[in-house]
Amino acid sequence: MAYNDQNIFAKILRGEIPAIKVYEDDRVLAFMDIMPQADGHTLVIPKAQAETLLDLPAEDAAYTIQIVQKVARAIETALSSKGIVLMQLSGEAAGQTVPHVHFHLIPSSVHKLGRHATEMGDQEKIKGFAEKIKAALA
Amino acid sequence: MAYNDQNIFAKILRGEIPAIKVYEDDRVLAFMDIMPQADGHTLVIPKAQAETLLDLPAEDAAYTIQIVQKVARAIETALSSKGIVLMQLSGEAAGQTVPHVHFHLIPSSVHKLGRHATEMGDQEKIKGFAEKIKAALA
Repeated sequence: MAYNDQNIFAKILRGEIPAIKVYEDDRVLAFMDIMPQADGHTLVIPKAQAETLLDLPAEDAAYTIQIVQKVARAIETALSSKGIVLMQLSGEAAGQTVPHVHFHLIPSSVHKLGRHATEMGDQEKIKGFAEKIKAALA
Repeated sequence: MAYNDQNIFAKILRGEIPAIKVYEDDRVLAFMDIMPQADGHTLVIPKAQAETLLDLPAEDAAYTIQIVQKVARAIETALSSKGIVLMQLSGEAAGQTVPHVHFHLIPSSVHKLGRHATEMGDQEKIKGFAEKIKAALA
C-alpha cells in the first residue's frame, strides 16, 4: 500500500512531534510507547518508509531486528525483566494502529498484556523507564 | 542460559520428530504450528542454537527476519489474509513454551488470538494450509 507520511511515527521521525527516545541512529529509532501495555513498553522502528513488515526492504528488516535485540537486552538489564514479548502487527486487520512498521518490545507475559493501544500511560513514569533503558544501552 | 538440545524444535531440526515444513534452507526452518492460534499459524526458527532472541547471534537474527518476511508474504498470498501478527516470546515469563527461539506468524488480529499453545489443531487441515503456503513460496 502507498505509504502515508502523515502518520504519527513519520511525524516523530521528522521531529514534528516529540517522543521519549531511547536509541537513534541513521536507520532506526527506538522510543517509549505512550500507551504502554506494560512498564518499559518500547517501540523500535526503521526510518525507511514502509507501512508493514511485508513492505519493508529486506536490508532494513535485517538491521532493525538487530537493534530490536539490543534494545530488548537493555530493557532486560534496566528493568530486571524476566520475559519480553516482541510483537509486530502488519495490517489494520491484525490490529496495527499506526501505518509505519513498528516492533513492540513488551517486558511482560503474552498472557497478561493489556489491550493494545487504548490508554495513555503516566508520562513521568515512562520517562523514568526510558532513562534506565538508555543507560543500559550506553 | 545454556541451550537444551532436547527441546522439541531441536528434535525437529535433527529430523527426530516430524514437522509440517513450508520452507527450509541451511540456516532457517519454517513449519506449521500444530497448536495454531489461527488458520495458517506458522513458525520460523533459526537453526542456530539459541534459547531466546536475546541470545541469538545478530547475523542469524538478520537472516531469520528476512525469511519471516518471505513467509509472511506467502501466507498473505496463500490464504488471502488481511493482517498478520508476528509474535516472538523470549523467556518462560513471557509465555515462551519451547526453549529455542521462534517467530510466530499468525494471520489474525491481535485482539482475536486464542490462548497460546493450548489445543491441538486438525493435522489434515494444517497440511492443507502448508501446501498453499509452500506453493506461494515457490
